[in-house]
Amino acid sequence: MEIHVVQKILKANDEIGQTLRERFHAAGTTTINLMSAPGSGKTSLLEATIRSLGLELRIAVVEGDPDTTRDAERIAPLGVPVTQINTAGGCHLEAHLVQRAIAGFDLESLDLLFIENVGNLVCPAEFDLGETKRVALMSVPEGHDKPAKYSKLFRKVDLVVLNKVDLLPYVDFDLGQLRCDLAKLNPSLRLIQVSCRTGEGLPEWYQWLCDLVSGP
Amino acid sequence: MEIHVVQKILKANDEIGQTLRERFHAAGTTTINLMSAPGSGKTSLLEATIRSLGLELRIAVVEGDPDTTRDAERIAPLGVPVTQINTAGGCHLEAHLVQRAIAGFDLESLDLLFIENVGNLVCPAEFDLGETKRVALMSVPEGHDKPAKYSKLFRKVDLVVLNKVDLLPYVDFDLGQLRCDLAKLNPSLRLIQVSCRTGEGLPEWYQWLCDLVSGP
Repeated sequence: MEIHVVQKILKANDEIGQTLRERFHAAGTTTINLMSAPGSGKTSLLEATIRSLGLELRIAVVEGDPDTTRDAERIAPLGVPVTQINTAGGCHLEAHLVQRAIAGFDLESLDLLFIENVGNLVCPAEFDLGETKRVALMSVPEGHDKPAKYSKLFRKVDLVVLNKVDLLPYVDFDLGQLRCDLAKLNPSLRLIQVSCRTGEGLPEWYQWLCDLVSGP
Repeated sequence: MEIHVVQKILKANDEIGQTLRERFHAAGTTTINLMSAPGSGKTSLLEATIRSLGLELRIAVVEGDPDTTRDAERIAPLGVPVTQINTAGGCHLEAHLVQRAIAGFDLESLDLLFIENVGNLVCPAEFDLGETKRVALMSVPEGHDKPAKYSKLFRKVDLVVLNKVDLLPYVDFDLGQLRCDLAKLNPSLRLIQVSCRTGEGLPEWYQWLCDLVSGP
């Protein structure tokens, strides 16, 4: 019974996700579903990205959180359109929430839409939001073992960004083991190492985004 | 429909949780439901705790993870009984899983049972595991804003342990804001600051556990 209902929810979500995907495609908007554990630095990555690419690309953001509008309050001063979704304790974003959140956006005037998912390495993996690409952010102090432990999510992403590499000297983090675990999940999965605090590695992330927006 | 089913799951869970609570109480076993984001250091905290209190108290551990047995493999060499629950992608532990996991434990011979929940700040909050106390672990690099953002979980815990305080010099972390946010959620909520890496603050956590086990 339980599984039956969950499947029905997923099916309904996938249908809306597909509708969104067609809308984004028709509008020429590249969309990133950004997923991570709580506190990996999703909002910091978006702040840095908007500061660096905000003149070059027309960017908008959808923020997902169980509670508070703190993330949207950090993005709004950067001058890009932003909508906060509060899931009222819900553990992931669903396509119908994104559909409502973008109702006020003029998609045709946007190059790049970031959807910052709820901080959670389990539940968001299941829900298609119509995104062009899925990006998993992880951070050095969380430890290298997260992709192996939360394999369902990492198996489904197009890119892994490892944040807070400036903390590598102060923690035990096995980059070799991380690469090995990621290769087991998906041999073609790319890893970009960055620090939003020092700026290290961010140009590689910006280049990945620009290549994506300009298309093949 | 969806909500109805979820409520039924929660009700069934609470009934098993209550049964477990009575069993733990009858056996004289103090039980800790340890919850945090992925990578806050739950297993490191347990490793340190078993090393320090393992002669004084009879300890056992239930490990919850979506995938892998890595956490149980870290605990087992310390010589305490440990069972790994793999939730097969599931985002939280439920009482019936704990019930099965402790089937092999002689509860009467245990003082302290740790249940390490799945790394997730959303879903575990809803599920009673029959625990004596709920402890939320957070870590400095995650940022001070997690209790405000994941208020449902932090509102329901008996203690917050802040790990990785050795990283305070290298990140932006507002301890005053954290205290303020916690006080808003629950004015009597205690905060213990530790570093599992340097050992700083851990004696306060050990004392809290020993007081709990010895009772009022």
